[in-house]
Amino acid sequence: MIDPVELTARLIQCPSVTPEEGGALTLLETILAEADFTCTRADREGISNLFARWGAKGHARTFGFNGHTDVVPVGDPAAWTVAPFSAEIHDGAMFGRGATDMKSGVAAFAAAAIDFVRDTPPDGAIILAITGDEEGDAVHGTRALLDWMDAQGEAMSVCLVGEPTCPDTMGEMIKIGRRGSMTAWITATGVQGHSAYPHRAKNPVPAMARLIDRLSSHALDDGTDHFQPSTLAATGFDTGNTANNVIPAQCRSMVNIRFNDAHSSAALSDWLCAEAARVTEETGVGFDMDIKVSGESFLTPPGSFSDLVVRAVEAETGVTPELSTSGGTSDARFIKDHCPVVECGLVGKTMHQVDEQVPVEQITQLKAIYARILKGYFA
Amino acid sequence: MIDPVELTARLIQCPSVTPEEGGALTLLETILAEADFTCTRADREGISNLFARWGAKGHARTFGFNGHTDVVPVGDPAAWTVAPFSAEIHDGAMFGRGATDMKSGVAAFAAAAIDFVRDTPPDGAIILAITGDEEGDAVHGTRALLDWMDAQGEAMSVCLVGEPTCPDTMGEMIKIGRRGSMTAWITATGVQGHSAYPHRAKNPVPAMARLIDRLSSHALDDGTDHFQPSTLAATGFDTGNTANNVIPAQCRSMVNIRFNDAHSSAALSDWLCAEAARVTEETGVGFDMDIKVSGESFLTPPGSFSDLVVRAVEAETGVTPELSTSGGTSDARFIKDHCPVVECGLVGKTMHQVDEQVPVEQITQLKAIYARILKGYFA
Repeated sequence: MIDPVELTARLIQCPSVTPEEGGALTLLETILAEADFTCTRADREGISNLFARWGAKGHARTFGFNGHTDVVPVGDPAAWTVAPFSAEIHDGAMFGRGATDMKSGVAAFAAAAIDFVRDTPPDGAIILAITGDEEGDAVHGTRALLDWMDAQGEAMSVCLVGEPTCPDTMGEMIKIGRRGSMTAWITATGVQGHSAYPHRAKNPVPAMARLIDRLSSHALDDGTDHFQPSTLAATGFDTGNTANNVIPAQCRSMVNIRFNDAHSSAALSDWLCAEAARVTEETGVGFDMDIKVSGESFLTPPGSFSDLVVRAVEAETGVTPELSTSGGTSDARFIKDHCPVVECGLVGKTMHQVDEQVPVEQITQLKAIYARILKGYFA
Repeated sequence: MIDPVELTARLIQCPSVTPEEGGALTLLETILAEADFTCTRADREGISNLFARWGAKGHARTFGFNGHTDVVPVGDPAAWTVAPFSAEIHDGAMFGRGATDMKSGVAAFAAAAIDFVRDTPPDGAIILAITGDEEGDAVHGTRALLDWMDAQGEAMSVCLVGEPTCPDTMGEMIKIGRRGSMTAWITATGVQGHSAYPHRAKNPVPAMARLIDRLSSHALDDGTDHFQPSTLAATGFDTGNTANNVIPAQCRSMVNIRFNDAHSSAALSDWLCAEAARVTEETGVGFDMDIKVSGESFLTPPGSFSDLVVRAVEAETGVTPELSTSGGTSDARFIKDHCPVVECGLVGKTMHQVDEQVPVEQITQLKAIYARILKGYFA
């Protein structure tokens, strides 16, 4: 029996702040290799990633797990009650950077998988795809692992991501999708001039104001079956001008869109450009758009895989989890192109904060949930 | 006969960059006192002003002249073709800071007035109210002179301001009024938040954008009998935010309004506040307004005084001047509360520029125009 609490502590003690491996993946590799997992380091561009498989390559029933051992910086160590990499336990909670996000999740799954294949070897395979770059740019992390797996002919039939998914109470939420996210940096260019003679200038400020008002006033949708309504937030609008009698030549704005499965980033980009073109037609002020897409929205429709996860959570916690698509982005956005993906983890309340902590009882509960999922999947 | 060209040169040679007197008012005081003008220095708070009167105090026919001897800084002296205070003449033009704005105007009027009272002493009085603070804050300049005159029981029946009023050609324009000017610094305050959860925040950016669009889209008027349409220019809009996923708590905007006699600054302030209140009602975002009024609009309706000026310009130049109310503000905005005021001067094209210059012929012409106006007034 692998103790997931002890394994979480050992992982927290590895100072694996992105992009440092910190010994965390090496520790996991050692433990998994001892349990007959085939381990390969799929490192890329200075980022460490671990691929581990038990069972036959290419088996039609391959259960995948995805997680990360890298953590965000500790901030001011003096602000912490305990040393951030000590993994000390106080009043039943283990403290440390990565305690909830997400060394406990990795430990719980590794422990569940090792016990499972030893006690009841299934007719199938289990893959752990653990990255060291989820908190950073995520360019050479899970994406690199998936590229490497493709090249090797390795594939997962389904994938569970062990990120914390519960806002407050253990078991209350799993995620079956995520909204997409994109940002447009918009520049409006007119002609500088004196405010006493606006007809000789071309003021970009009211043109941008009109565009931002129109974009912000437009309801993108009313939500879809599994998603909240898409949102648009104008987070910036700047001229840098302090002279009240000078009409500036340019101004810039930032618009961040979180969108559900009613949209694609391409269609939204077209819409942004069309609205800008309309204002240009009305005002003569030109717009330039620099659009960056963090990820498309995606959904693993409720079905046998999510049912399996729901039943396991219910059995261990007595709580029926909500099938949510809320929150920011996660590495699930890369995995969804390869296989059905569901996210299920513990309470994320203190993630990224000073005194990040996890009740040790939740780690044990999470291992039990993962064990039930494995048992159910291979039944 | 006072030579206005020589007097202009002597005034230019006084380096009277605001707030320096530079010897310019002292020179005028000497010349005017020699011609039997009663001279008093109405200085205030380090600013020099000159009051000069020929004739009886309180006479019902008192012709006033207003001008300034202070000049704007020269900028980079190396950029000038000649030394900026040399008053050198090249190809018929006198170069120097203040050549057009407005030492030539002051010299032309002083020369005309001195010659007039010596050759044909009128039944009436002539006042010259010359300030050393028109290019600066204008707080202790013409306003101080007018305050001092009020206190002394000195009054002008009409007043001619000698600022340059012609855009390109001598004689083409005089000014019978000016638009008002005011600026509103607007702050919108919402609630900061994460762009992924806009419903938990209150974004001030789209609220301000809506307000600016509405203000900018509203036609204040179509112009009035003697004024161009009023204009509103949003010259600033700033959040200072660079994080695309953060909704800022505040943003600020600047709106400059140039308004004609269809409006008062008080009514416009009420309108701005009402439009802001409407957006607050729609969005929940609060607005704070800091409004500063540079001056109300004013008009000296066309009549006997402007007719007199028009006829004098026509006689000397062959050009019929337009009665205009265009341009920025001038000290006429202070004088209009005391008596009818008209502005009439030469071509202002190079004012405030490097190589500011005036054709010497225009100085002579301007003296002749002013002489005709005096003759007509006292006829």
